[in-house]
Amino acid sequence: MKLHLLHQCVFSTPNIISLIKLRASSFSTSASHREAAVSMVQGASRGLGLEFVKQLLEKNSQQHVVATCRNPDEAAGLVELKNKFSERLQIQRLDLTVESTIEESARAIRERYGYLNLVVNASGILSKPDVIHPETTLTKVERSSLLLAYEVNAVGPILVTKHMWPLLKVGGGSGTERDVAVVANISARVGSIGDNRLGGWHSYRASKSALNQLTKCVAVELARKKDPVICILLHPGTVDTDLSRPFQKNVPKDKLFTKEFSVQKLLSIIESSKSNDNGKFFAWDGKEIPW
Amino acid sequence: MKLHLLHQCVFSTPNIISLIKLRASSFSTSASHREAAVSMVQGASRGLGLEFVKQLLEKNSQQHVVATCRNPDEAAGLVELKNKFSERLQIQRLDLTVESTIEESARAIRERYGYLNLVVNASGILSKPDVIHPETTLTKVERSSLLLAYEVNAVGPILVTKHMWPLLKVGGGSGTERDVAVVANISARVGSIGDNRLGGWHSYRASKSALNQLTKCVAVELARKKDPVICILLHPGTVDTDLSRPFQKNVPKDKLFTKEFSVQKLLSIIESSKSNDNGKFFAWDGKEIPW
Ligand SMILES: NC(=O)c1ccc[n+]([C@@H]2O[C@H](COP(=O)([O-])OP(=O)(O)OC[C@H]3O[C@@H](n4cnc5c(N)ncnc54)[C@H](OP(=O)(O)O)[C@@H]3O)[C@@H](O)[C@H]2O)c1
Ligand SMILES: NC(=O)c1ccc[n+]([C@@H]2O[C@H](COP(=O)([O-])OP(=O)(O)OC[C@H]3O[C@@H](n4cnc5c(N)ncnc54)[C@H](OP(=O)(O)O)[C@@H]3O)[C@@H](O)[C@H]2O)c1
Repeated sequence: MKLHLLHQCVFSTPNIISLIKLRASSFSTSASHREAAVSMVQGASRGLGLEFVKQLLEKNSQQHVVATCRNPDEAAGLVELKNKFSERLQIQRLDLTVESTIEESARAIRERYGYLNLVVNASGILSKPDVIHPETTLTKVERSSLLLAYEVNAVGPILVTKHMWPLLKVGGGSGTERDVAVVANISARVGSIGDNRLGGWHSYRASKSALNQLTKCVAVELARKKDPVICILLHPGTVDTDLSRPFQKNVPKDKLFTKEFSVQKLLSIIESSKSNDNGKFFAWDGKEIPW
Repeated sequence: MKLHLLHQCVFSTPNIISLIKLRASSFSTSASHREAAVSMVQGASRGLGLEFVKQLLEKNSQQHVVATCRNPDEAAGLVELKNKFSERLQIQRLDLTVESTIEESARAIRERYGYLNLVVNASGILSKPDVIHPETTLTKVERSSLLLAYEVNAVGPILVTKHMWPLLKVGGGSGTERDVAVVANISARVGSIGDNRLGGWHSYRASKSALNQLTKCVAVELARKKDPVICILLHPGTVDTDLSRPFQKNVPKDKLFTKEFSVQKLLSIIESSKSNDNGKFFAWDGKEIPW
């Protein structure tokens, strides 16, 4: 038994019991499965989320992934991966703005695996025709955009963290190279208040600052409870995805990353993360970003 | 003509024309009135907002105040001040969650005065029985609380700033000791991410971090446009009001300020503020708070 599981046992005996019970139940009882890491990628239909799913599955043949998205039937990239990775990939419907779908996802993961070692909250919204536009001036700031960005970029990931927390406590770092389970919330450098020199993008920036604060709140609690779980914030760089496409014009070519490159960098940060990274905000290159 | 008005003239001739036209219109044409400062206090029914109204009116006999609140008829403290200060105090209905009431308030101020020199966004929500409770743990975080706190503490003040901006540009620092008009958004130290060592109060903290980011966005734009307006964030200390009452138990007596003391400190920061304070986050003692 790993040291952190022993710790967990001391601090919360029911957890370790449910770990043993659940791992022995519906998932599988074979030794290899008991050592398998289970990761959840939320917002996996496309962009960085889809790439996280792909790299997680490709890099480790013991890795199981739960990929969630709003419309599984339309997520062509996920369906393709499902054909290739079969049982190692579970696709679930989850809409961040409908909390019951988050609860349902947690229930399904609990039944199938009983634990989680990683949650990547990769969803996000910056613009959507006729719905939300990144603001270039205060006069264009709209109540509806502020609220929508907040709901998707800040409220959603924190509700996912809330409902997956019990599963992460059970999983800890087992089946991984880490001592801890990780919640990786994809934030953005523009969410940094100290680093805001250009202004604009009010709704998006404010929602990411709020996500940073919420993640910090969670990190403080995880540390106090000595849970084998940490929460970190990641900035992927400017990456060539649907989200950045309308705004790539002024980005120098060498500053526009492929999603393959960005996710490789972010996964290496996640995989090597330790207890004392809890609550930190890292860029793709591992450098910390000021609040 | 003050230097900043000259600047304004160079940068935006229509503004100075409307300044002259509007000040000569419905408000008054007497010399003393043209020198009068006009301040708006939003969230003035009680607590710090009401105290801001009182001190602004008492300290300067040339000061006019527009006090806004959700229910003017129930705002006993404001009615009392109205009886004493008569024409120098205008009470208007404004509910932060109904943008049309903000627009209506801007229209009424434009008609009566034509300009503003100060906006204090003093409203705020932390708890409300059966509606919103400051969270002590992640498991108690609710979608509805996150959204309500955001709407009142972050979205509302920024919409007020948006609609009052044209009036502040006209007013600048005229009739005050300052070179600039000021938007003072009352934030809170617990909105600081860097300073968050205790966790909890997720909804309130996140909404204040977002307010900080939104205010920073506005400050950057004001500076770029060389408007005679700045935007600052203020932490009032822990102050004996309805908002803090349920949480005062563990506050040492000398750390619980009266609203008289806190507002005196905050007004002295506002009154002595300069262009290069734009976008800063000050505690009641004038010390800057990290993001
Ligand atoms: N790309 C960049 O340059 C960049 C830079 C900094 C930070 N980021 C951050 O990186 C993360 C990933 O962005 P990306 O570039 O991969 O964006 P993307 O390609 O636009 O993908 C966004 C993802 O979020 C999902 N989503 C949106 N609303 C949702 C909701 N209500 N419920 C569940 N999922 C929802 C989308 O699902 P649907 O397919 O159902 O719409 C999609 O999977 C975001 O948090 C973003 O803010 C990106
Ligand atoms: N007191 C402290 O220790 C403390 C510490 C740090 C920061 N602050 C901040 O200081 C500011 C003032 O707080 P306070 O202590 O004076 O609180 P308070 O006594 O509870 O007063 C709150 C004010 O906000 C108004 N308000 C609430 N929702 C509103 C809405 N939808 N539209 C318009 N107005 C609304 C209330 O109006 P109604 O009367 O209509 O409800 C009331 O006037 C807040 O921003 C608070 O976060 C206070």
